[in-house]
Amino acid sequence: MMDLVLIGIGTGNPEHLTLQAIRAINRADVVLIPRKGGKGDLADLRRAICAEVITGPTRIVEFDMPVRDPANPDYLSRVSDWHDEIARRWAAAIPQGAGRVALLVWGDPALYDSTLRIAERLRARVEVIPGLMSPQVLTAAHGIPLNEVGAPFLVTTGRRLREGWPEGVDTLVVMLDGECSFQGLPPEGVTIWWGAYVGMAEQILDHGPLAEAGPRIVARRAAARAAHGWIMDIYLLRRHPASAP
Amino acid sequence: MMDLVLIGIGTGNPEHLTLQAIRAINRADVVLIPRKGGKGDLADLRRAICAEVITGPTRIVEFDMPVRDPANPDYLSRVSDWHDEIARRWAAAIPQGAGRVALLVWGDPALYDSTLRIAERLRARVEVIPGLMSPQVLTAAHGIPLNEVGAPFLVTTGRRLREGWPEGVDTLVVMLDGECSFQGLPPEGVTIWWGAYVGMAEQILDHGPLAEAGPRIVARRAAARAAHGWIMDIYLLRRHPASAP
Repeated sequence: MMDLVLIGIGTGNPEHLTLQAIRAINRADVVLIPRKGGKGDLADLRRAICAEVITGPTRIVEFDMPVRDPANPDYLSRVSDWHDEIARRWAAAIPQGAGRVALLVWGDPALYDSTLRIAERLRARVEVIPGLMSPQVLTAAHGIPLNEVGAPFLVTTGRRLREGWPEGVDTLVVMLDGECSFQGLPPEGVTIWWGAYVGMAEQILDHGPLAEAGPRIVARRAAARAAHGWIMDIYLLRRHPASAP
Repeated sequence: MMDLVLIGIGTGNPEHLTLQAIRAINRADVVLIPRKGGKGDLADLRRAICAEVITGPTRIVEFDMPVRDPANPDYLSRVSDWHDEIARRWAAAIPQGAGRVALLVWGDPALYDSTLRIAERLRARVEVIPGLMSPQVLTAAHGIPLNEVGAPFLVTTGRRLREGWPEGVDTLVVMLDGECSFQGLPPEGVTIWWGAYVGMAEQILDHGPLAEAGPRIVARRAAARAAHGWIMDIYLLRRHPASAP
């Protein structure tokens, strides 16, 4: 039975790699690298990491990522079919006899990533090596804590945030938000800490009261996206308890 | 002005260190190591990390951690006074002329840790280097994702969990729980993934439906705590959406 090792590589700074991740890459027979084409492809970053850390006979094998079928109107089945097809491409790309196959996962395999779910489709033992993930790279860059003393925080998505500020929690970490969904919130008493390309050379940060910083971030995000051809961003919102309803 | 560098070191496996953390340790003039005394002190682990990664002139300076004043009945002022005293001990321990001082923070400085708040008390520039934190080391060990597809998750404490399952979220990561507070929840439809000493050689894992695994975990936790003299644990609870009210 094959071992599939999902290795978190952090958010784009090659120095985010842990010693455990470097050892796991070198213990693999093969590293599978997806090619997506276009800007923000990240294949170059994965190749650079391999070039930097591989010291033994580990081989690199690349494969082309399929695209989701736009003809399928059902979101969940479209994603499921797409994962099936990715699993088939992994299987086709893995050389005969490779006993230990590694995939380099952006951030951490546990956080808003489908690699674990794709891996379940193959007959393989799955092992996970954690990696720095964007919420902590964001808070480190701003020098702020995730939580207030003894208080909880919610990690959520832009889509969910558009339903309103969730009950019972004053700190939100928002990911997967292509629409600056913070614009739909009443900004009073809310502070935002935002980052794009966190951990990468292109990193941009901004923060402040949501009423002032929000419109500025919308503009900076649009400009950065136009300049780079892609964007990946994340933000933390903290509500002063006094402003809770 | 002094630079204070708070370096996340992961959860006890020296291989959790990132290349960035290793470089930051070596760029420091001094690493401050707290001595707490007793089991679970972790000073040995910090010393071992330093011995393993320091390649240049970086010095190690140790100081004794103060204890909180049990005579002060007010929790928040007791903690605040304690942080003041820790800051004074840092200042007293830092050698004259040290321009760059590092502290090795268990896990990540952003997550349920007071080092950032203590650092604010000194006149210093503060820099944060993120480190692997226990929620992701737990999920990696179990090979599970933090979130369900597109869904949020809440990171919270045992004390908060004793108020009941929070609104609007089906995945909880529970930290700082000395009382196995999951025992107060209706267990139907809930699965628990638990870990103690995650990332360390002593790591113990258990998981299953809360009704079955819960009592087993209570017993295993008590036995491990008795055997080691201390314990640090964390768990993830996932509720099947169908069981939500």
